[in-house]
Amino acid sequence: MSAYRKFLEIREKNNSILCVGLDTSIDKLPALFSPTVDSMLAFNKEIIDATKGIVCAYKINFAFYEQYGIKGMEVLKGTISHIPADIFVIADAKRGDIGNTSKAYAKSVFEYFGADSITANPYMGRDSVEPFLDYADKFVFLLALTSNPGSNDFQRLEDGGKPIYHHVISKSSEWAGTEQLGYVCGATHPAELADIRKIIPNHLLLIPGIGAQGGDVEAVLDANSAGPAIINSSRAIIYASGGTDFAEKAMQAAEESRAKFNRQ
Amino acid sequence: MSAYRKFLEIREKNNSILCVGLDTSIDKLPALFSPTVDSMLAFNKEIIDATKGIVCAYKINFAFYEQYGIKGMEVLKGTISHIPADIFVIADAKRGDIGNTSKAYAKSVFEYFGADSITANPYMGRDSVEPFLDYADKFVFLLALTSNPGSNDFQRLEDGGKPIYHHVISKSSEWAGTEQLGYVCGATHPAELADIRKIIPNHLLLIPGIGAQGGDVEAVLDANSAGPAIINSSRAIIYASGGTDFAEKAMQAAEESRAKFNRQ
Repeated sequence: MSAYRKFLEIREKNNSILCVGLDTSIDKLPALFSPTVDSMLAFNKEIIDATKGIVCAYKINFAFYEQYGIKGMEVLKGTISHIPADIFVIADAKRGDIGNTSKAYAKSVFEYFGADSITANPYMGRDSVEPFLDYADKFVFLLALTSNPGSNDFQRLEDGGKPIYHHVISKSSEWAGTEQLGYVCGATHPAELADIRKIIPNHLLLIPGIGAQGGDVEAVLDANSAGPAIINSSRAIIYASGGTDFAEKAMQAAEESRAKFNRQ
Repeated sequence: MSAYRKFLEIREKNNSILCVGLDTSIDKLPALFSPTVDSMLAFNKEIIDATKGIVCAYKINFAFYEQYGIKGMEVLKGTISHIPADIFVIADAKRGDIGNTSKAYAKSVFEYFGADSITANPYMGRDSVEPFLDYADKFVFLLALTSNPGSNDFQRLEDGGKPIYHHVISKSSEWAGTEQLGYVCGATHPAELADIRKIIPNHLLLIPGIGAQGGDVEAVLDANSAGPAIINSSRAIIYASGGTDFAEKAMQAAEESRAKFNRQ
């Protein structure tokens, strides 16, 4: 089954567009865990077990694991292995390099780690993205307008009256179809999200930046209109409680987010 | 000692601006190696031992190791550990993410792997680069105009009559001084390199794309004029021979490249 089909099915099954971001780091683990790299895996497993019926996807931020070196990569591998096979896995790795190098990144993320999708950086252009698209059953989220303050530095420069992130979207959308290629658009820019939806009403969007980064759910939902989207929440869910009830609180926070994202 | 000082000293000591790119992959190892991940480390060690008196830097392309998962990361770690302490190590990882995530990437590359410098992607702007610059003794190469065909897709779009990669250079050069921040400019664009040198005559440039990618050494040297530069060569050196003489041939190829880059 293609990754996109998997997304459609789990969205239906769990009635959810919520993605939980596993941005796990040792210094934020609930107090009952010893502050070790191994504890990250134990924590992630409990978070996954508590939320797997409520989400459509998990987003694994590679940096949070790479910072702990090889042991961290073991936790990353173990975490992905623990995710039920019917849930969409996003490798939030923001990779991109010349062709033969992106090919090696694709091999790592899709074959070694077994993720369904990857976030990729568009700066190096078509041949830096194509090796990811060569996996016809996987999915690529290209960065368009990101959620952070630095998104103002270059993404909004204008060529021919259109911001760079519009050029990224319109040019790259010729490289693959909607079942293989989507975009990252930060929740912190609802007006721009509405404009993006005019260009690509049917592409899957990954929307980070709700919560800690300041994105407003209602504004995002209005802007997105009825387009297919995955809304990510990381810290507000996985660190909902630092006590022994962390898994239960994570589940509650996930349920609340799911309902809010579904306007229920 | 700062990374930049280290570069200046090794450039002087080895009279070289040659960087050897360790883009090692199993299927290209000389025939005498068994085709295993472990052989990559044995091969890299021999390449390093043969060339360490001829180079100013080694560039480690993270993708080539990540494609082999955790065993590949062990080879990456072992390779960096084997590089003499006075040679400049470039982590060619092309990372970049929102602030707290880039911080984790910086920790991985600078603290865990102990690299002197990293290649970073500018698309996400200032707060995605600053966590790397927060390491005052390390060095960051920001992608400006890359060597690949896809560099034409977005890097050359123009705002206010100036290409995006000029904006990247002029804006980011306010974020840190020349002892901490340099740029990647592909050898395949000598005319643009000459223009870049008019904007930033004194910044360190990392110049890939000589050889297999088609960059012309003489044109690059003319364009670069007297600016500080590191010219990378990967496949032409490490795969100079597939026979038992691979290390000797790599040494000869490195010596020839060094002489050419020095116009000797």
